[in-house]
Amino acid sequence: MFVNAMPRYEILSEGAMEVLDQGWRRIVSELGIEFLLPESVDILRAAGQTVEDENRVRFDPEFILEQMAKAPAEFELQARNPAQSAHIGGDNMVFAPVYGCPFIREGDVRRDAKMADFENLVRLAQAFPELDSPGGTICEPEDRPLDSRHLDMVYALQTLSDKPYMGSVTSAPNAADTIRMGEILFGGREAIERAPVSISLININSPLRYDDRMLGAMHEYVKANQAVVITPFLLMGAMSPVSLPATLVQQMAEAFAGIALAQLIRPGAPVVFGSFLSNTDMQSGSPSFGTPESGIGVLCTGQIARRYGLPWRGGGALNASQTVDAQAAYESLMTLLPTFLAGANFVMHSAGWLEGGLVSCYEKFIVDVELLRELRHEFTPLEIDEASLAFDAHVEVGAGGHFLGAVHTLERFRECFYRPLLSSTENFDRWTKKGSRDTTARAGELWRETLESHEQPPLDDAVRAELQEYVVRRRAELGD
Amino acid sequence: MFVNAMPRYEILSEGAMEVLDQGWRRIVSELGIEFLLPESVDILRAAGQTVEDENRVRFDPEFILEQMAKAPAEFELQARNPAQSAHIGGDNMVFAPVYGCPFIREGDVRRDAKMADFENLVRLAQAFPELDSPGGTICEPEDRPLDSRHLDMVYALQTLSDKPYMGSVTSAPNAADTIRMGEILFGGREAIERAPVSISLININSPLRYDDRMLGAMHEYVKANQAVVITPFLLMGAMSPVSLPATLVQQMAEAFAGIALAQLIRPGAPVVFGSFLSNTDMQSGSPSFGTPESGIGVLCTGQIARRYGLPWRGGGALNASQTVDAQAAYESLMTLLPTFLAGANFVMHSAGWLEGGLVSCYEKFIVDVELLRELRHEFTPLEIDEASLAFDAHVEVGAGGHFLGAVHTLERFRECFYRPLLSSTENFDRWTKKGSRDTTARAGELWRETLESHEQPPLDDAVRAELQEYVVRRRAELGD
Repeated sequence: MFVNAMPRYEILSEGAMEVLDQGWRRIVSELGIEFLLPESVDILRAAGQTVEDENRVRFDPEFILEQMAKAPAEFELQARNPAQSAHIGGDNMVFAPVYGCPFIREGDVRRDAKMADFENLVRLAQAFPELDSPGGTICEPEDRPLDSRHLDMVYALQTLSDKPYMGSVTSAPNAADTIRMGEILFGGREAIERAPVSISLININSPLRYDDRMLGAMHEYVKANQAVVITPFLLMGAMSPVSLPATLVQQMAEAFAGIALAQLIRPGAPVVFGSFLSNTDMQSGSPSFGTPESGIGVLCTGQIARRYGLPWRGGGALNASQTVDAQAAYESLMTLLPTFLAGANFVMHSAGWLEGGLVSCYEKFIVDVELLRELRHEFTPLEIDEASLAFDAHVEVGAGGHFLGAVHTLERFRECFYRPLLSSTENFDRWTKKGSRDTTARAGELWRETLESHEQPPLDDAVRAELQEYVVRRRAELGD
Repeated sequence: MFVNAMPRYEILSEGAMEVLDQGWRRIVSELGIEFLLPESVDILRAAGQTVEDENRVRFDPEFILEQMAKAPAEFELQARNPAQSAHIGGDNMVFAPVYGCPFIREGDVRRDAKMADFENLVRLAQAFPELDSPGGTICEPEDRPLDSRHLDMVYALQTLSDKPYMGSVTSAPNAADTIRMGEILFGGREAIERAPVSISLININSPLRYDDRMLGAMHEYVKANQAVVITPFLLMGAMSPVSLPATLVQQMAEAFAGIALAQLIRPGAPVVFGSFLSNTDMQSGSPSFGTPESGIGVLCTGQIARRYGLPWRGGGALNASQTVDAQAAYESLMTLLPTFLAGANFVMHSAGWLEGGLVSCYEKFIVDVELLRELRHEFTPLEIDEASLAFDAHVEVGAGGHFLGAVHTLERFRECFYRPLLSSTENFDRWTKKGSRDTTARAGELWRETLESHEQPPLDDAVRAELQEYVVRRRAELGD
């Protein structure tokens, strides 16, 4: 797992932070947040918060801060292979791939996502050490029935990968299935309550509203001590005002209110302060990603999370491009580099995202793995000491010489620099002779090779059988 | 001109900075630097430095620091249109396009560069406000005779653009031509000596050697108070050891020695501490660009420059890709974003660079202009105050609503976010109907439209005639 020991890049002044602090307090206390699940409202009312119009809760900001203080600043996220367990919070950065896409892009073909794609993408996430998790809904397999699809997905995540996974959030029963399957995989309720074995995305129906299905799933997970990433869904201009400061305070108000609820449900439950913040392209009306605004949003969110002592989610390899071209690459890095500068603890959408999140793309997955590899290298502090200055190499080579054959070089040439996975430095003639394959074409070859050589991680036969049995039984109960 | 008012991202500890400081001192004092021009050696000997083997000068580091202290921390760079004059140093960032490429890429065609390309690229640099200068050898026009080509290039830079330009450095006489043409354009020697009207790239023949031609050009420029960018040419593994700390101290030793010489030639002469630092791909043996190492090199160089009070050059949109694909984009941004984080004062190669600098590419030029536009937006500090929180917009929209039609949005929708030049957020159907044009195809359309609609900046007929006369006369003298 990657520990980001580089300095954080912080851009908010103390005065700005104070303005933001006043902003979220005003929203939660004067406007309130809607919770469309009666159980949530009851809990908040019982804790002394003001309920209006059935489901709008006006908060005392100090109450929110008191609850938030119960949330762990860091926590373990268990993997079935203990060597793959992750640590959320502090200087740790945990990377998961794209999430929630109905479509697949493979070369020049764009089509509906299938279960076979889901499985392939989980295998790719398992194969590359740059990804700490296969994520959750890495694509939406349209060839499986909607009501029981979550069972297939969780089963694939649990069996094709031995890394920590994300659970289903489409309803309380689906969350309960995820939890039950976690118990089977890890050996019972106690095992999964010791530290979470899943981390799940609770999106807020921004502005200022939690819907009942997401809340139902959140209640299930939090009761079982499973981690949740409470994330306002903010495209400025649509779900929030066309102002980054306004959107930051909305993000705080919405997420902080949900985190407070989670801590009421189960004090000390593992929660992550989530950010998904970009802007609408006011010319096309479509969402933009990888914009300057989203980069700045990541930097600010990190600083805010540290101020309030919360582990946080943000960033990713986001972009709006229709294909794996220059725009896809520069927009992705325009978000991913700030993700490292800000030290996000949990990074969704860090590989494979295309077309504003509508598409899971195989080639883009490889491009993003290359970016993650480069950034992990870049954000590893330099060791600067007398020996690193290689004075003897200068003595050996002399003025006007070259270092290719120097002893200092020969001793270090395998390890001295980042070694690309995908990028090419071939000269033009050689590149042309080899077929003039651009980055996307080379990425196509790489993901196919990776899948061909991939070996599935071992799993106890009895556990696998019990999981299969559970899936079959529940699918039948759900009528599929 | 862009003023970078965001914080600098600094990664070197005080202890690391001290190790680096000892490192360059040891190189200049124990190994020395070679100057292959006798005039340079004579000046340094006369100033009390030790000369060995005819041209190797061993320095007292304190002497170098004394000379460096005479260099201005900031200076004006005059343009013939005063509104285009630039300021080098401080928080200012000045951007110039790619430099020195023998080849052109235009769509799928890669070919020798011609004078017509040179002129087109100067027009593009003039057309986009993101570029503060057309640079110098924006490509090498192979259809013009080698001995007099510099005259054609300087004439094109002076007449097709009204921004500050870079001069010829291939020899002392070529530099003298550049200076003389500057006098014609600006109205005499006094006018160009008040503040420089050109800025020229003096590359060091690294390791530890200045060649006679570059030194000849440098002497000419410095005597005339024209700015020089003194730049070690460092591809780690070839021209420097396979260690970033070692390369940083070599960069300091080489550049500081040249800056000291410049200050001896003319105390107070405008100089820029230059950095061109990347690494060899130890697998292919070719140069790499846009690597983690080059990004970190930019960050460190900025911090070093500030420590020694020098304006500095570094970064750019560097990459090793053969075509305008994902790699070209991510490698470029992997250097260009650190360029902004580090606040480089003078940025060469900020538009059009492809294939490790062998190719000036029209489409890449547009991609890079988009990156520069985005980064200028991103590195403009947020204004965070009570009004920016848009509380009234929340009152208007309410929970679960949307902001597209809110008064707050309608009043601001034109200005609220970055507006792309090149990037597309079109949905897939619309994008497909419009021809499925990727970023590079759209860039091709944009540079052609820009050239078609471009208007040449006005120039006094008498001045133009005098420049033409000078070029014709000198070309004849040079036998072309």
